[in-house]
Amino acid sequence: MFIEKLKKAWEKNNSLVCVGLDPDLSKLPECVKDKEFPIFEFNKQIIDATHDLVCSYKPQVAYYAGQDAEKELKMTIDYIHANYPEIPVIFDSKRGDIGSTADMYAKEAFDRYNADSVTVNPYMGTDTLKPFLDYAERGVIALCRTSNPSGDEIQNLIVEDKAIYKHVAKMANEKWNYNNNILLVVGATYPAELGEIREICPDIPFLVPGIGAQGGDIEAVLKVGLTADKAGLVINSSRGIIYAGNGEDFAQKSREATETLRNTINQYR
Amino acid sequence: MFIEKLKKAWEKNNSLVCVGLDPDLSKLPECVKDKEFPIFEFNKQIIDATHDLVCSYKPQVAYYAGQDAEKELKMTIDYIHANYPEIPVIFDSKRGDIGSTADMYAKEAFDRYNADSVTVNPYMGTDTLKPFLDYAERGVIALCRTSNPSGDEIQNLIVEDKAIYKHVAKMANEKWNYNNNILLVVGATYPAELGEIREICPDIPFLVPGIGAQGGDIEAVLKVGLTADKAGLVINSSRGIIYAGNGEDFAQKSREATETLRNTINQYR
Repeated sequence: MFIEKLKKAWEKNNSLVCVGLDPDLSKLPECVKDKEFPIFEFNKQIIDATHDLVCSYKPQVAYYAGQDAEKELKMTIDYIHANYPEIPVIFDSKRGDIGSTADMYAKEAFDRYNADSVTVNPYMGTDTLKPFLDYAERGVIALCRTSNPSGDEIQNLIVEDKAIYKHVAKMANEKWNYNNNILLVVGATYPAELGEIREICPDIPFLVPGIGAQGGDIEAVLKVGLTADKAGLVINSSRGIIYAGNGEDFAQKSREATETLRNTINQYR
Repeated sequence: MFIEKLKKAWEKNNSLVCVGLDPDLSKLPECVKDKEFPIFEFNKQIIDATHDLVCSYKPQVAYYAGQDAEKELKMTIDYIHANYPEIPVIFDSKRGDIGSTADMYAKEAFDRYNADSVTVNPYMGTDTLKPFLDYAERGVIALCRTSNPSGDEIQNLIVEDKAIYKHVAKMANEKWNYNNNILLVVGATYPAELGEIREICPDIPFLVPGIGAQGGDIEAVLKVGLTADKAGLVINSSRGIIYAGNGEDFAQKSREATETLRNTINQYR
């Protein structure tokens, strides 16, 4: 079960930190650029340096699809499973399509890449999520209230006195959690709304992007977002960790940034 | 300009038909299964057999991502551009993510694969569409009212007396069309709603899935969906065309199915 694996990782590493593996070739340190697989080498060093400080890794598929690097994405996920099997992998692809197509996307995430969980977009409704949810051992993380500035254009429209993101939260809690494997994406940039979603979904873990480069407030998020067991959050940082350094010690710098973030978060738990 | 290329293809082939290139390896005819690149060979034969009867080809990315076949996707798109440069290619990936990630997805669709247009999901709002829209020469096709049964769960929620899909249509018309390159996905399974969206967006082309296997009504769609110049629709068929035959003559059968569909559509124009 994905949720069980996540809980164990939270406990073992005493950490709610997720490292976003979003490697942009143009920004990688010189010392990995001449390798045969620079993206994999970069990821591997960061993973080796941070594995005891995190609760998950989240490769963002765009960085691999945009740079013709599916092979390095597969190598990265395989490397995590082989060396740190206790750390779950989130395949961040935000898929959403009709049933027969969603079947193929579920195969991609869970069979081809063997990810522990996948992010999905709920705009097309339940039948487009079902092929993912039916993999009962894997996690499915649906967009609810996203961290970006225009996130409110659709998500905050009011239907029967309630914003769309609350309708999504309600569906997650009441309809999509039949295998106890749904999670939600809730941005750190709108902590008040995160708190409202926590009231609707007291037990569902949230993947929380938007701290660091996007400016979300960690204290405010922790104050309203924790579950009763002082967990329930997977707080992602990508650029703040993977680009913490740019020299030969980039992995050590990423470790320091991860540790700082973990400790900052834990002081509010 | 994508819209200009599409208009020329509509006119040249007197066709509103788009062929969805969604090859499932388990369903391909025996005669291509032993080829080095069975998916490409299958697509190539269908493209050669139908290029004078269609207004576009639409590879659904899931079928390539799910079957480790990015190379054959690239070969397919390159083949269309090299041999039938008048026919635009729609990269059907329904992307949607924050700006920096959307940049990478736009690179994927337009630089890596050199597609003429891409499908996107509007749930995260304008800033997630902008990286695509800024490619002024390419088309961006946003989900509006989708063809699947659960499409209504979010899309038909009512905000200020108006369903969400109408809000999306309004944003497309007033906000997202600054480069005259936006299109909308509007399913054939809900023709009354398609007609409402046409009223909001009199000139924007619609990509229309949902005929064939999904049961949409062609006559009803044409009655309310055409633009003033008797076009404005890109009517997709995937399974009904690509699996029209399963023997050595599968490509000829796909041609016959395409021709029948084109003629059925044209009798209502």
